[in-house]
Amino acid sequence: MVRVGVIGTGMIGQDHIRRMTQVLAGVRVAAVTDVDASVAAAVAEKVGATAHATGEDLVADPEVDAIVVCSWGPTHEQYVLASIAAGKPVFCEKPLATTQEACLRIVEAEVAHGSRLVQVGYMRRYDAAYRALKKVVDSGELGAPLMMHCAHRNASVPPHYTKDMAITDTAVHEIDMVRWMFGEEIAAARVLVPRRSANGGELQDPLFLVLEMASGALVDVEISVNIRYGYDIRGEVVGESGTAALGELSPISVRAAGRFATPVPLDWRERFLAAYDVEFQEWIASIAGGGAPVGPSAWDGYAAAVVSDAAVAALDSGDRVAVVLAEKPKLYLEATS
Amino acid sequence: MVRVGVIGTGMIGQDHIRRMTQVLAGVRVAAVTDVDASVAAAVAEKVGATAHATGEDLVADPEVDAIVVCSWGPTHEQYVLASIAAGKPVFCEKPLATTQEACLRIVEAEVAHGSRLVQVGYMRRYDAAYRALKKVVDSGELGAPLMMHCAHRNASVPPHYTKDMAITDTAVHEIDMVRWMFGEEIAAARVLVPRRSANGGELQDPLFLVLEMASGALVDVEISVNIRYGYDIRGEVVGESGTAALGELSPISVRAAGRFATPVPLDWRERFLAAYDVEFQEWIASIAGGGAPVGPSAWDGYAAAVVSDAAVAALDSGDRVAVVLAEKPKLYLEATS
Amino acid sequence: MVRVGVIGTGMIGQDHIRRMTQVLAGVRVAAVTDVDASVAAAVAEKVGATAHATGEDLVADPEVDAIVVCSWGPTHEQYVLASIAAGKPVFCEKPLATTQEACLRIVEAEVAHGSRLVQVGYMRRYDAAYRALKKVVDSGELGAPLMMHCAHRNASVPPHYTKDMAITDTAVHEIDMVRWMFGEEIAAARVLVPRRSANGGELQDPLFLVLEMASGALVDVEISVNIRYGYDIRGEVVGESGTAALGELSPISVRAAGRFATPVPLDWRERFLAAYDVEFQEWIASIAGGGAPVGPSAWDGYAAAVVSDAAVAALDSGDRVAVVLAEKPKLYLEATS
Amino acid sequence: MVRVGVIGTGMIGQDHIRRMTQVLAGVRVAAVTDVDASVAAAVAEKVGATAHATGEDLVADPEVDAIVVCSWGPTHEQYVLASIAAGKPVFCEKPLATTQEACLRIVEAEVAHGSRLVQVGYMRRYDAAYRALKKVVDSGELGAPLMMHCAHRNASVPPHYTKDMAITDTAVHEIDMVRWMFGEEIAAARVLVPRRSANGGELQDPLFLVLEMASGALVDVEISVNIRYGYDIRGEVVGESGTAALGELSPISVRAAGRFATPVPLDWRERFLAAYDVEFQEWIASIAGGGAPVGPSAWDGYAAAVVSDAAVAALDSGDRVAVVLAEKPKLYLEATS
Repeated sequence: MVRVGVIGTGMIGQDHIRRMTQVLAGVRVAAVTDVDASVAAAVAEKVGATAHATGEDLVADPEVDAIVVCSWGPTHEQYVLASIAAGKPVFCEKPLATTQEACLRIVEAEVAHGSRLVQVGYMRRYDAAYRALKKVVDSGELGAPLMMHCAHRNASVPPHYTKDMAITDTAVHEIDMVRWMFGEEIAAARVLVPRRSANGGELQDPLFLVLEMASGALVDVEISVNIRYGYDIRGEVVGESGTAALGELSPISVRAAGRFATPVPLDWRERFLAAYDVEFQEWIASIAGGGAPVGPSAWDGYAAAVVSDAAVAALDSGDRVAVVLAEKPKLYLEATS
Repeated sequence: MVRVGVIGTGMIGQDHIRRMTQVLAGVRVAAVTDVDASVAAAVAEKVGATAHATGEDLVADPEVDAIVVCSWGPTHEQYVLASIAAGKPVFCEKPLATTQEACLRIVEAEVAHGSRLVQVGYMRRYDAAYRALKKVVDSGELGAPLMMHCAHRNASVPPHYTKDMAITDTAVHEIDMVRWMFGEEIAAARVLVPRRSANGGELQDPLFLVLEMASGALVDVEISVNIRYGYDIRGEVVGESGTAALGELSPISVRAAGRFATPVPLDWRERFLAAYDVEFQEWIASIAGGGAPVGPSAWDGYAAAVVSDAAVAALDSGDRVAVVLAEKPKLYLEATS
Repeated sequence: MVRVGVIGTGMIGQDHIRRMTQVLAGVRVAAVTDVDASVAAAVAEKVGATAHATGEDLVADPEVDAIVVCSWGPTHEQYVLASIAAGKPVFCEKPLATTQEACLRIVEAEVAHGSRLVQVGYMRRYDAAYRALKKVVDSGELGAPLMMHCAHRNASVPPHYTKDMAITDTAVHEIDMVRWMFGEEIAAARVLVPRRSANGGELQDPLFLVLEMASGALVDVEISVNIRYGYDIRGEVVGESGTAALGELSPISVRAAGRFATPVPLDWRERFLAAYDVEFQEWIASIAGGGAPVGPSAWDGYAAAVVSDAAVAALDSGDRVAVVLAEKPKLYLEATS
Repeated sequence: MVRVGVIGTGMIGQDHIRRMTQVLAGVRVAAVTDVDASVAAAVAEKVGATAHATGEDLVADPEVDAIVVCSWGPTHEQYVLASIAAGKPVFCEKPLATTQEACLRIVEAEVAHGSRLVQVGYMRRYDAAYRALKKVVDSGELGAPLMMHCAHRNASVPPHYTKDMAITDTAVHEIDMVRWMFGEEIAAARVLVPRRSANGGELQDPLFLVLEMASGALVDVEISVNIRYGYDIRGEVVGESGTAALGELSPISVRAAGRFATPVPLDWRERFLAAYDVEFQEWIASIAGGGAPVGPSAWDGYAAAVVSDAAVAALDSGDRVAVVLAEKPKLYLEATS
């Protein structure tokens, strides 16, 4: 039974607490903390956990075997570093940290520690459809992968959503996913700017992100965040002799009112609910009994940050921007799952 | 250039005249006639054809090489027999005649003539989807065909539509189609009666027709004639090791308003438009230069009538009713296309 | 934490033990027993449970809050009755018992107890696709349901599989599912016998089961158990104004070698894996804290047995056989989930 | 009856002759000519046409009402100009001419003539799927069109195929199609170069063409010409509130050997056969009785040439290349069909 401490009991934190108490085997929420102590106290009481005043206290709690960080982004670095310092496994929701420099500090701290402790919450790697897609790509059935066409569509975004967030909040999922799907780094980014949708007001939406992989493979991502009709995540890998794509995924189809139709998910919760369960299930299994996590690593979090920075620069300049990564430490040479 | 005389210039007759004058090569409408002489005269003037007072006059016209019968069902027998007597190819819209006895008289007249002259208007055999389905079945890829599941769905039917017409007007298309698809006769019919749809008022709708083929293969046909959502024709052949089905057939798909959808045809005209063109094109090609038709034969028209009678009897009695056919003349031993 | 005792540690029992120890929250396997005591001992040691000599001992164990029965079918009755006698919730894998009389004895025992304790393992009610289908049917969007077309296809069956098992082992899943989907009892059964597949040797395969619901709705089930191409479960509900069907469900599609293809599951494990997890998760949630199960009831198990008997009689006789149920006790008047 | 003269009786010319003699109504092949006089003579005899020594003789023949140009590309300009000089409608297979300057000379000649005579053979505008797609786009159902994702995939290309031909021979169909689909000109082109497929040897394949429309809408085209699995043409228009895409188009689906599959066409003949028929049928209908063609115009042919030149320059330079068109004459201000 892994005893987990959760830092940050907002919407996502509470959802992970529900997952660890009501859904999954082998785990118990032993401690919580939040910037709002009254929320932390209420949650703690509900699940029978200890409420701590600070994240550092929670990390230090001997009843806590592993940490889940769901707090505000700018605080991620300090809690992940504290967990590493304590030698405890830490699952950090994306982003790993809010700057590539901070991500690199985490990488360096983990390298200094000497073994993996950090896992970053890129849940697409746990989605059944992406996993089936990767299995076909890895089988060689399509020949070498040459391109991937993606679309990331949201029905709508809140008013505070900015142009940069289309990269850093939205397409960052594709950025992590293609590194994993292709098993290689991203070498450069461009962003092309299509005609603007009136649905988003002044926001530049959609965007068209083009990523060059180290092998030369090209990945294009349509990012449409006010498309109204639903939440739709699509991806097709084009190989030398065939292609493979995410399926339509609807459990049913309906023939009514002149059409043969399948429903589209309303939002990401509906689309990726099962992926979050699998993500935590595998994380818990990997660290139970003192093991190291095998999911997205601190390096993956760092690389996503560097590529996001390049893509934002590309969006601002209109140019192709190269991705410049630090040298990859040996600790991360094995592929993550 | 085949010179055709058209008996009956109602809706279907005029559509075939349009087809033979504006769409297809190798054919000319030379003469027309109709029970309403003024309609015939108007049509004749429009396409530069001769208007005849009677069908018999039209058949006798030396400028007429072949006859198309689109008149009221009860008159089919006399015009088809007249065409056979004149030794001219005749395309007769379904039904070949309104009783199985009349159909058999046509078969006997054609046999006495000694070669095929008659083709019956079962256009499904010319539909690209049914043809592709038959090609897979005939390839043996699925093993022996054991079952076929069909649905014949109309958005609505007119008020004069009766329960029997679900067999004689609607399912008769499936009756002809499965004889052709399986390459064998139907041995017996049953009709099961589901809960009644309120959409059809007092009409018993839907019905569930089950046909036994000579080989023992079973064919089921859902007949729903007031299903509102569109015109939908479905069919799946179940073989020993696989199945093949009619596709969704929509040229496009639309993602909007929460769904991924393809449109369903409104009516049979939309669904089978191209099949009528191919039917006539192949009929004309077969008889050009004095050849014999190779499409659905007088025997096929007779067999459809006998099976329809059995199915109506099964509907009335609730029992399994055997299909009893006359001996098949040698003239019809080759498969029709 | 619900403490469960498992009677029967064969393949299915061990799979449920894995589910309760490695996958799901809120449950612990406290005790096991098996006809083969050495197997029980080995399993007990692995999961830290007590091994009992008999099912009765296990039921009596004060450390056991609830029982899961996965033993040989003929023993189900005694263990379920023992659980009821002990006033403990019991989950019984299908069938509830091997005769309708035995099922009725269980119903009567539970009624005498005065509240629900028994749940039967019909897992299709927990499948996401069937649930989405039922939601559409219940919404009234299609009008009243009039028919349902089903197919239950297995790639192959073992040599000891008999004709009756196509009903009692295979189609029994559809028998339970349609009672739940339509929210009403089955009134009669027929079995039509198609041409036999050579894939099954002497076995009569496929069969075509037709069920009449109390409302008059008709349900047809193609049962093909040697169809080679995969495990394929299909269902389409036909309403007055539209239809809804189970989707294709594949997470991906592949374009290669001349075709656009989605994989078909190999077997029922692959198709219904998630449904088993949900089934247990909801069962545990319902009984935690002393609640009553809300899933398939003893009455559902009894009704499935009576319908199966009628369908087997229909298969043997070729006739329509009416389903005659005992009067339904008030305990079961609320719909089960 | 339109009397057509065909210049060039190679593969495409003979296919159009077959179409005009065996398939379509209202047209007759009155004359032919070819650089190989013996081929022309043989074809002429077969269809009862006059064989002319030169294209100019054929254009001048008073028995020829309209001309179809299917000769070698470099000869298109002279025959189209000769037809315009003679005041006769001319259908010219793509390209209209082999340079943008030659295309502009044709435009100017037609403008001097004062009414449309020229139609260019871009047959996609006659494809049922593209037409249905345009109908949805034009309906406004999706909001303003912002992007279009296309793929143009060939199973293989012959050894003489060069990198430029991916633009000038292959993607030129998309270039014409999107001008028509969006109802506006293309403003600029880029070509991105993905990792190279080993299937094409030294040939750079695939390519990724990005077109900017005058409105700012972006169109991307994956061009893969050695993808082995079949001929696959895909297109999805992304609007402000939804998307619409070409359908899968297969008439059937097959469940066999572990998969649910629909066949992919082998080549463009199979995919666009019906579009050629409709193209000619509508062209003939438009010019019968002295009318003007309404299909792709000389301006469309010119614009396609200018965009192709820009795209080839973009491919060579790696840069964004603006499309610079002459001023559009009033003659072409109405949209072509």
